[in-house]
Amino acid sequence: MSRVIEPAADSTAALAGRFARVRARTLELAAPLSAEDAMLQSMPEASPAKWHLAHTTWFFEQFVLARAPGHRPYRDGWAVLFNSYYRGAGAAHPRAQRGLLSRPTLDEVKAYRAEVDARLLEALTRDALDGEARRILLLGLHHEQQHQELLLTDVLHGLACHPGRPAYRDDLPAPASGDAVCAACAWIAFDEAVVEIGASPWPAHRGFAFDNESPRHRVLTAAFQLAARPVSNAEFRAFVEDGGYRTPSLWLSDGWETVEREGWDRPLYWQEDLESAFTLGGVRALDPHAPVCHLSYYEADAFARWAGARLPTEAEWERAATALPVQGRFAEDGVLQPQSASGSGLRQMFGDVWEWTASAYAPYPGYRPWRGTLGEYNGKFMCGQYVLRGGSCATPGDHVRASYRNFFYPRDRWQFAGLRLARGA
Amino acid sequence: MSRVIEPAADSTAALAGRFARVRARTLELAAPLSAEDAMLQSMPEASPAKWHLAHTTWFFEQFVLARAPGHRPYRDGWAVLFNSYYRGAGAAHPRAQRGLLSRPTLDEVKAYRAEVDARLLEALTRDALDGEARRILLLGLHHEQQHQELLLTDVLHGLACHPGRPAYRDDLPAPASGDAVCAACAWIAFDEAVVEIGASPWPAHRGFAFDNESPRHRVLTAAFQLAARPVSNAEFRAFVEDGGYRTPSLWLSDGWETVEREGWDRPLYWQEDLESAFTLGGVRALDPHAPVCHLSYYEADAFARWAGARLPTEAEWERAATALPVQGRFAEDGVLQPQSASGSGLRQMFGDVWEWTASAYAPYPGYRPWRGTLGEYNGKFMCGQYVLRGGSCATPGDHVRASYRNFFYPRDRWQFAGLRLARGA
Amino acid sequence: MSRVIEPAADSTAALAGRFARVRARTLELAAPLSAEDAMLQSMPEASPAKWHLAHTTWFFEQFVLARAPGHRPYRDGWAVLFNSYYRGAGAAHPRAQRGLLSRPTLDEVKAYRAEVDARLLEALTRDALDGEARRILLLGLHHEQQHQELLLTDVLHGLACHPGRPAYRDDLPAPASGDAVCAACAWIAFDEAVVEIGASPWPAHRGFAFDNESPRHRVLTAAFQLAARPVSNAEFRAFVEDGGYRTPSLWLSDGWETVEREGWDRPLYWQEDLESAFTLGGVRALDPHAPVCHLSYYEADAFARWAGARLPTEAEWERAATALPVQGRFAEDGVLQPQSASGSGLRQMFGDVWEWTASAYAPYPGYRPWRGTLGEYNGKFMCGQYVLRGGSCATPGDHVRASYRNFFYPRDRWQFAGLRLARGA
Amino acid sequence: MSRVIEPAADSTAALAGRFARVRARTLELAAPLSAEDAMLQSMPEASPAKWHLAHTTWFFEQFVLARAPGHRPYRDGWAVLFNSYYRGAGAAHPRAQRGLLSRPTLDEVKAYRAEVDARLLEALTRDALDGEARRILLLGLHHEQQHQELLLTDVLHGLACHPGRPAYRDDLPAPASGDAVCAACAWIAFDEAVVEIGASPWPAHRGFAFDNESPRHRVLTAAFQLAARPVSNAEFRAFVEDGGYRTPSLWLSDGWETVEREGWDRPLYWQEDLESAFTLGGVRALDPHAPVCHLSYYEADAFARWAGARLPTEAEWERAATALPVQGRFAEDGVLQPQSASGSGLRQMFGDVWEWTASAYAPYPGYRPWRGTLGEYNGKFMCGQYVLRGGSCATPGDHVRASYRNFFYPRDRWQFAGLRLARGA
Repeated sequence: MSRVIEPAADSTAALAGRFARVRARTLELAAPLSAEDAMLQSMPEASPAKWHLAHTTWFFEQFVLARAPGHRPYRDGWAVLFNSYYRGAGAAHPRAQRGLLSRPTLDEVKAYRAEVDARLLEALTRDALDGEARRILLLGLHHEQQHQELLLTDVLHGLACHPGRPAYRDDLPAPASGDAVCAACAWIAFDEAVVEIGASPWPAHRGFAFDNESPRHRVLTAAFQLAARPVSNAEFRAFVEDGGYRTPSLWLSDGWETVEREGWDRPLYWQEDLESAFTLGGVRALDPHAPVCHLSYYEADAFARWAGARLPTEAEWERAATALPVQGRFAEDGVLQPQSASGSGLRQMFGDVWEWTASAYAPYPGYRPWRGTLGEYNGKFMCGQYVLRGGSCATPGDHVRASYRNFFYPRDRWQFAGLRLARGA
Repeated sequence: MSRVIEPAADSTAALAGRFARVRARTLELAAPLSAEDAMLQSMPEASPAKWHLAHTTWFFEQFVLARAPGHRPYRDGWAVLFNSYYRGAGAAHPRAQRGLLSRPTLDEVKAYRAEVDARLLEALTRDALDGEARRILLLGLHHEQQHQELLLTDVLHGLACHPGRPAYRDDLPAPASGDAVCAACAWIAFDEAVVEIGASPWPAHRGFAFDNESPRHRVLTAAFQLAARPVSNAEFRAFVEDGGYRTPSLWLSDGWETVEREGWDRPLYWQEDLESAFTLGGVRALDPHAPVCHLSYYEADAFARWAGARLPTEAEWERAATALPVQGRFAEDGVLQPQSASGSGLRQMFGDVWEWTASAYAPYPGYRPWRGTLGEYNGKFMCGQYVLRGGSCATPGDHVRASYRNFFYPRDRWQFAGLRLARGA
Repeated sequence: MSRVIEPAADSTAALAGRFARVRARTLELAAPLSAEDAMLQSMPEASPAKWHLAHTTWFFEQFVLARAPGHRPYRDGWAVLFNSYYRGAGAAHPRAQRGLLSRPTLDEVKAYRAEVDARLLEALTRDALDGEARRILLLGLHHEQQHQELLLTDVLHGLACHPGRPAYRDDLPAPASGDAVCAACAWIAFDEAVVEIGASPWPAHRGFAFDNESPRHRVLTAAFQLAARPVSNAEFRAFVEDGGYRTPSLWLSDGWETVEREGWDRPLYWQEDLESAFTLGGVRALDPHAPVCHLSYYEADAFARWAGARLPTEAEWERAATALPVQGRFAEDGVLQPQSASGSGLRQMFGDVWEWTASAYAPYPGYRPWRGTLGEYNGKFMCGQYVLRGGSCATPGDHVRASYRNFFYPRDRWQFAGLRLARGA
Repeated sequence: MSRVIEPAADSTAALAGRFARVRARTLELAAPLSAEDAMLQSMPEASPAKWHLAHTTWFFEQFVLARAPGHRPYRDGWAVLFNSYYRGAGAAHPRAQRGLLSRPTLDEVKAYRAEVDARLLEALTRDALDGEARRILLLGLHHEQQHQELLLTDVLHGLACHPGRPAYRDDLPAPASGDAVCAACAWIAFDEAVVEIGASPWPAHRGFAFDNESPRHRVLTAAFQLAARPVSNAEFRAFVEDGGYRTPSLWLSDGWETVEREGWDRPLYWQEDLESAFTLGGVRALDPHAPVCHLSYYEADAFARWAGARLPTEAEWERAATALPVQGRFAEDGVLQPQSASGSGLRQMFGDVWEWTASAYAPYPGYRPWRGTLGEYNGKFMCGQYVLRGGSCATPGDHVRASYRNFFYPRDRWQFAGLRLARGA
């Protein structure tokens, strides 16, 4: 069964349960962090964990609670602090300075969460939320799940800036070891076809999807082949050792400029020995058979060229993924690191690592942003970024689907992003 | 008849004639420039006219003449000066410092041109060029035509930096005045269809096309409508006056950041009065009915959103254009400024202004770069840029075709770039 | 009596007492800060309070405890974290990234302080420190007092970046109100003279002084006049209202460039109304008679030019100050804000605000840096900075002397820096 | 006799003669340059030769001719182009964009020079210039001589950016070879003394001096020793080979940052072999005994520290220089490169290389800028720069005097700047 079942919009109990679960999970992810860890902002693109905790709460306060007449903000001035980029919701503290928000403290933010949670559950259970409010509540949970993953990637980046390379958690389980026999990668072939991709627009249709996944539409994909599994650490290491980072002909022009300017010579977090990497569990040996991770689009693309292949388009990826159950290693598994896998056939499409596609992030034909301020959620970023598919070891499992479109700039490396090869038929 | 007939690869006379014509035309375009004008480099993206003259010549020397055994370079050290970005052809002087090449002088560059021309024509006419050399010769002419347009846009940008706003030429004819009655824009409707776009790969097929136009392939386009003509100055002025540059909700996120950082409040070259603009003929009144020009992708996209429409994809554009003759106002007309047009039906698809499309510049399915160093021509730029279609008032008319893909970064404004609206059916 | 009496180098009790007092005072200053406040680094020049706490401790560990054979560092890897700029002491974490050190936590840093304090007091009282170690111990206390002031200025800057303008302490006493009658400023006249300035080199001579205050040497000062008191808020406000920040002829060329680039239009921390300012006690009304504060050298110099006067040289300042007792409003007073004063004659030379002098920070004739790594303390900064004199409301009172040379870049505004006018005789 | 005799302000013939001579000399210096060479601006601090030609002419037009009632500018709009930094004289084209002024052409600028020269000489000879105008005329000649040197240093920098390393002139004579026997450097000793330095203010006093050289004033200099000659190439090479550029303890903090950021590892223009350097005559072998040149203050200071010495203060330098005739190798010698010298005693104080002093550029006690717009000439730059003394091989010989204060930023390397060591007595 390939698609997540959404709670019925009319089941208050289910919605309340889901709400409680997702909100608790975020706190759980933040639990290993001291107040000081939760302040870290190591680059403008990354946000402090405390800010993620507060912003996701503000989202509910701003878009659900504040709909009620007479709503008084939890604290004056906090909306500015915790608005991210919704110009329709007023001013926002500059993104690059989120790490300067020592006030409110982590404890005060947790109290904020508790209070907003209580108000929402109270309103929900006494049926004070209309349909629109309930829908935004559900949206807010999907929003929060996105921030759960960002919280992890941002913490990882922040801790990586510390010369002592401290672990997020010292007690993470060791990754599984896949079946080494399957190391050679097989190709799965697809014929030319007009396929339907994307999701029917929510909430008109029942299954939740972000606006950028809609409308569902037909695409013609030429015949192609898709690698049975993602590219492994061992394979990427061969690229490094073959001089991949010193060979301009393998790179896009913008990518090569970045390599030279930034002095890139291996994936982010790989140590100099090419045999270990910094992870949420500290520095650990690289499993040669696990998917390579923390690549930019530029690196993924250069590797594919070196390998005589290319990245799949998102239509190709989705066509292949639609047939599969949404199963894989997600954040709940608790390893928080890509793992090698066994088996045959198309595998690891979901979980482990996000897979860069060759597709620039663009609106689907007939795309309409959500109405009002929430229309800023996705649409205004449809320029200069690339689509990633499939979710990662840091993604909540029930947050992913075949039509899910993640997107980052081609230079971004701090996500759990790897690649799967494709080639013409 | 909608496609240019290429000279038969086996007709030496035709090739020689074309060669002489194109090379002479470049000199003609540079003729109004003093040695000092020809030195101007006003930003890293723009090159001095002298450099264009030399680089296009180096292209022939490097890729045609140097194929002959025993070839001695015209001058030692010049290859470094005039290589643009072909890493396979050795080192290149830094792009941003082309304006520091006072040596060789303009006269010496003209002598270089004359000598390379003579050698090539000599080799061509005594049949010393093999098929590959002849093909590269032809490619070099298409390459040179691209630089003819860049020479004009770069000179315009350089002169615009001068507080005296000097004209490139004082004797440019006044633009034509179109039929004001046609000012209201009609929509042309297209049904859903699988169409074929792109060009068959040259030189396997006879008609010349750049590698990025191939292979010809099927695309499914949903039903859509295309505006009968480009957006006019009057229409864009209404956007400006409506506060378009002060309304973040109209802009892509990256676009709005650019607007704020650069202080954009009107198209490049428009004067503060919104009624005149700097052109190659100096400051001139804006024709309200002429196509608006010198827009970035961000501005084109914001205008479309303001107008309740969108930009066409390149497949939509090409589908519509394929049916039309390649006719329009090109560089040969000598006005070097977009003009208003009369008539009904789909018009001004070719010439006047390049039209930004909604399509990120990406490889077509099955794309293969040319072999060897010339493979760097187009492929390595397929990231972060957007496709423009149709040619402009500064494009040589026989350089354009329906499948032609021009590409620039979304922030770039100094090309003759405007837009045509599209919308869903 | 105008100079502080240093504890006799041979009085262990006095040294231990002073040590305990200074170290406790630093903790007291950090007490109002949460762990999160103590992480704030709002610009590369400012350091987190936690880092100040740790760095001053590292200074004792590195330069005193580590002299003992067999010393084992308190924690491996911490030397890199808390070394500031002593290249002779090994690697240092990049200054601009001190705010990313969530580990160790504030509590761990306090434990570090306690342990190092215990070890030092133990070594001191069982006479295990030789003369050199005792001298460095004393130096370390002067060093720590410098960081006490920096801790306050850096916290102030960090909190000022928060849109809520939170106070460092809500319970700071209100500033005193001086005698408004004394508002008109008198001039004190000095004849031409060869005077001796500077301090005899410590430790050869008994009174402590930094190396940059030595050697004591003769300087010829022409006749001059010195303003009886610092420039007041009311006077500076008149400059602002007279268009001082819009009049390039009042500014040094580098200063004007800074004004334009940074958009300066009033002193740092002044609110738009020119009647209130952000302070360690939150936003407070400006006392018109209190010394103006948080000026760059550029602003001090421009004001002086506007007023038809100039800044004093450090020799002029020191000549005048030497005759006075080191009395004034210092950090111990607990107001942490410059206050207006009453009385006649030369006043407020010490305390309230550091006074920019016209003197570039340079070595005195015959200057010798301390030997070894501590030679990096002062000497390597003698370029591009200007000398300030007299201490401020955030300086420990027993840290200041007439020969004391503070120094900052002319663009720096976040210190408690004001000015006193001078003019020719 | 050590000081230049100025033409009597009342001798029209002498003034006219000097005017003609200086103006002609500038053209002579520009004569080897093509129109394109004269466009080169290789960094914001350097200006195109054409701009120097025009700016010096504008100076006369603006400050002399425009004093006459009814003056009409030579060309409308040119004042903006050729004003440098005189805010009192209206707007100025941005300094970093002087290289974009292809218009007017070099020939038009020469015609401008001729016309302004003619008008001035006509006015001068028919006695239409009042005393003030005559004084500014004289000042304008000193101003022009400064630009003669800048023209050479800026051309050298521009040509050095060309990978072909083209010479300014191919026919420059070979440098002289000094007496190798004198290679070991002697020290000249000076006692403590109160000396008078500086120049009496012109025009109140007859001999010309810039305002920054006045007033003449007493300074106490402690006993010191001054090296008999500047530091040589061989000596500086020993510093390089001893790892001087890799030893942070030798450098000022700002200097070391610059070394690391810019990747400095030898003087500007030295080739990698440390045996040759780019000069106005092209790449030439370094004379080991000639003064080292093209150093920043940071490098001069680091060398002095390495050598166990220091830079002299400007008072020390001037005290020593006042006793000497203003003789040396200047621009008129036509070698345009520092040369080694023979002899004994204090030598090469004038000419060959400017000598960095330890003195930050600051006003003398009682300094008053000239009145009006010309007050911007020197005063507003008295911040962040260091004084150089003595003139160079590119300075006109009659432009230099013992009191002359040149000044540049400590990072600046493109002047003919070297150093002479000093040390305590």
